[in-house]
Amino acid sequence: MMHYPPSIRRLIGRLQALPGIGEKTAERLALHLVRVQRKEAEALAYAILNVKEKVRLCARCFGLSDTDICGICSNPSRDASLLCVVENVSEMIAIERSGAYCGRYHILQGALSPMDGIGPNDIRIHELLLRVDEGEVKEIILATNTHLEGESTAIYLSELLEGRPVRVTRIASGVPLGGDLKYVDQMTLKRAMETRHVLG
Amino acid sequence: MMHYPPSIRRLIGRLQALPGIGEKTAERLALHLVRVQRKEAEALAYAILNVKEKVRLCARCFGLSDTDICGICSNPSRDASLLCVVENVSEMIAIERSGAYCGRYHILQGALSPMDGIGPNDIRIHELLLRVDEGEVKEIILATNTHLEGESTAIYLSELLEGRPVRVTRIASGVPLGGDLKYVDQMTLKRAMETRHVLG
Repeated sequence: MMHYPPSIRRLIGRLQALPGIGEKTAERLALHLVRVQRKEAEALAYAILNVKEKVRLCARCFGLSDTDICGICSNPSRDASLLCVVENVSEMIAIERSGAYCGRYHILQGALSPMDGIGPNDIRIHELLLRVDEGEVKEIILATNTHLEGESTAIYLSELLEGRPVRVTRIASGVPLGGDLKYVDQMTLKRAMETRHVLG
Repeated sequence: MMHYPPSIRRLIGRLQALPGIGEKTAERLALHLVRVQRKEAEALAYAILNVKEKVRLCARCFGLSDTDICGICSNPSRDASLLCVVENVSEMIAIERSGAYCGRYHILQGALSPMDGIGPNDIRIHELLLRVDEGEVKEIILATNTHLEGESTAIYLSELLEGRPVRVTRIASGVPLGGDLKYVDQMTLKRAMETRHVLG
């Protein structure tokens, strides 16, 4: 590190601050950026600045967006009667990647966690109810994570939505596909047993 | 990828252009930059721009520098009578890191390689001779790599420097420390045998 000029040392330091980037990798990336055409390095720098300039939360679903309303919320070919509720953007991305869903999303921006002082007013539950009350949504799919906080949030929401004219569903839990039963944890196996269903 | 707003997609693409960064890592880094404080992301962007603005080759040794003459060439506590000749900056860094050297460097910016059309006028040999002719250097340590091109370059330089009042040395080759003989390649073992020396 000390063998580099100050500007390179600073860049190595900044790259090292990124998650999963150690000193060796930071050094390798910095030297790459020193070597490449000025234009190429600048394109990366400007892409970073542009993201900080543009990206905000969608005013409807609270997903990431370059515009006030995101691409999914403003896409007329997505089914507006289906609303999938997730904790964070990364879960939305995972579902999108699966290709199994054509409705819209509501990103809570977290899960209920009394231990961490996160209550119903700290995540986007109020906004979810407002969307439901608009009347277009017919089914709410609760796709919060299957850990304690996610499960409690799903239960809380299902109780809150009782009495409203929407079907409330929860994504299935069980043994992952391609998995070997002996490597599956006890809780998952218990759940898979309890929610077993008739074949065919 | 297509599930992200355009600005994030562009950033993922730019990050993926970095060596050793795959799609998953690029995505993770991009989302990190989306999440962090604006200031932190900007600091990385500006560090990249700054490097492209500032870094140049030292006018004496052709190492990387923020100034016309680099920190090592302008450091009066480095021994000006020792000159270590390497192919590229990365080898200079490796030697600096070893802590075994207190002299100065000359970075050739490559090695002779007739196959690739790289001859004596394509690397910084002329500038090396000029430095030698200034009279301050007493020993030239040839630390080019030990592959074919590096070895040929070392031999070429030692012949070129014959008759000049400098001692010309070559870094030792042999079995790496902590190495197991059975995993060392034949050429290295042959060299280690040939250059064996009396102990004590």
